[in-house]
Amino acid sequence: MNPMDSSVTIFGDWGTSRLRLYLRQGKSVLDRRDGPGIGALNGASPREAFLDLVGDWREAGPSLALLCGMVGSRNGWREAPYAPCPGNAADIRERLLHLDADGLPVAIVPGLSCRNALGGPDVMRGEETQILGALELDPALKRGRHLLALPGTHTKWVAVEDGRIGSFVTAPVGELYALLREHSILAKAAPGDDPESAEGFALGVARVREQGAARLPHLIFETRSRQLIDNLPKADAMGFLSGLLLAGDVAATADWFGALGQVSLIGAPALSGLYAQAIAAFGGTSVAVDGDSAVLAGLSVLSPNTSGVHVVA
Amino acid sequence: MNPMDSSVTIFGDWGTSRLRLYLRQGKSVLDRRDGPGIGALNGASPREAFLDLVGDWREAGPSLALLCGMVGSRNGWREAPYAPCPGNAADIRERLLHLDADGLPVAIVPGLSCRNALGGPDVMRGEETQILGALELDPALKRGRHLLALPGTHTKWVAVEDGRIGSFVTAPVGELYALLREHSILAKAAPGDDPESAEGFALGVARVREQGAARLPHLIFETRSRQLIDNLPKADAMGFLSGLLLAGDVAATADWFGALGQVSLIGAPALSGLYAQAIAAFGGTSVAVDGDSAVLAGLSVLSPNTSGVHVVA
Repeated sequence: MNPMDSSVTIFGDWGTSRLRLYLRQGKSVLDRRDGPGIGALNGASPREAFLDLVGDWREAGPSLALLCGMVGSRNGWREAPYAPCPGNAADIRERLLHLDADGLPVAIVPGLSCRNALGGPDVMRGEETQILGALELDPALKRGRHLLALPGTHTKWVAVEDGRIGSFVTAPVGELYALLREHSILAKAAPGDDPESAEGFALGVARVREQGAARLPHLIFETRSRQLIDNLPKADAMGFLSGLLLAGDVAATADWFGALGQVSLIGAPALSGLYAQAIAAFGGTSVAVDGDSAVLAGLSVLSPNTSGVHVVA
Repeated sequence: MNPMDSSVTIFGDWGTSRLRLYLRQGKSVLDRRDGPGIGALNGASPREAFLDLVGDWREAGPSLALLCGMVGSRNGWREAPYAPCPGNAADIRERLLHLDADGLPVAIVPGLSCRNALGGPDVMRGEETQILGALELDPALKRGRHLLALPGTHTKWVAVEDGRIGSFVTAPVGELYALLREHSILAKAAPGDDPESAEGFALGVARVREQGAARLPHLIFETRSRQLIDNLPKADAMGFLSGLLLAGDVAATADWFGALGQVSLIGAPALSGLYAQAIAAFGGTSVAVDGDSAVLAGLSVLSPNTSGVHVVA
């Protein structure tokens, strides 16, 4: 769509746990609706769930629904094969998977695969849209080499070079933390327990900084031994474990990416704030990018009738 | 006891999940009985459970029961406070906790605490007896600096210097592996699945060797992406994860200990064999020490009437 475009489209961010649909006219969001994630359909087909939620939006005459995320996975609506890296918005736009839903054209954004900086295979699905959106929101990121991070259950670290997604690495940090917190003897926490403390987090980060990332497997047990020997309170122990894992992730990234520079952190503010602290401890700076804004900007630039130089206001 | 000693004693290895009692006369084991671990007493007191299992052994007139392991923890029979490092058999023998059980003298071996090589607190309870036993079984370990490992849920790495336990580091590698295998999306395995493959294990070790231990947090996700992209079979994926975690543990140890040299591996043959492979990949060699033999030799040297130079045949 060009800046004068007033056509009506539907954008959708459809992950494992949540569907978020936007009704747009030109660059304006007219309405928003939330529905079930791909992993929470309870037997309904993605097509049925989608058309149910769209409902009376059809009356506005949308020309297209553009969807990103797990909707394009093997267990989603239809598998949209991973696009290879490096790639930019134009490359991914060419690989949109086109469907028809009861007369409404639907396009699904493919995920990305790469050989990452460690020489291993890696994949993402949904994050590519946020990354491309972040490049639209801050076009300075399209020149030179930059590091972006999408913290979460599976944190993604992305090397962008001259506006192309070069490669990325996934670190299952959130999943590890949750497993250790809920199931291990290291920092076993009950649902009503205090959240992790800032002091504990800072101590965990400092320990990885002092000892080096290669010793992380041996620092993790301190979560337990500091409680036993030093009477570290539970909230501090949980913060300590979180600090160790996030700092280990940041240190591993600095090891393959080189100097961190200014990292763009895309996602929820609380977790991004913790990553910002860990990044600062390893000599980097960071700037926060709102996750929902990044999705919308990314879907805009991926819209089939959009030119590669289009900038979302 | 001296080599001519024919007095009757009871030795016990009482951990969280298992009690193993030995009836000894001099250096000979006359009988053996297994009972419940400290974590499996179902409401019985440790004293009751112990006397029940001893039963008619009392008729042989034992002069002492010497017990090591979690029996001396806060949740055991009575807490035997951790002895500090560095320490040798004589130092620990001085800190035995003495009790009376219905007229039978009982001594509980204290655990050890230390500031480890990373400057953090660390603790063990039970392993100290196996370590002292390994030094008796191979007296060459009492001269110079040596590395011993006790692989398990919480693997212990122990630096022995001139016959004294200098310090040690705990790595919760077995616990991490079990958590990831049973609860994560990385290598989720059903109970009936094939065990981890040797090929997968070797690949995991090789990846840590190539990429360096500092990148371990980023290698772990390959367990998943290699299944998705490279069609790695489940048994290989589980082996791969196991190889990554063990190699990460060995690499972390080489980082703080220095050249590994010949590592004494105390414990069960299967897990020790995997550690031997990972140690070889990082330039070390290893020799296996049977865990039960080490416990018996350790309890012998810790017996109150034993001289420090006594060697178990």
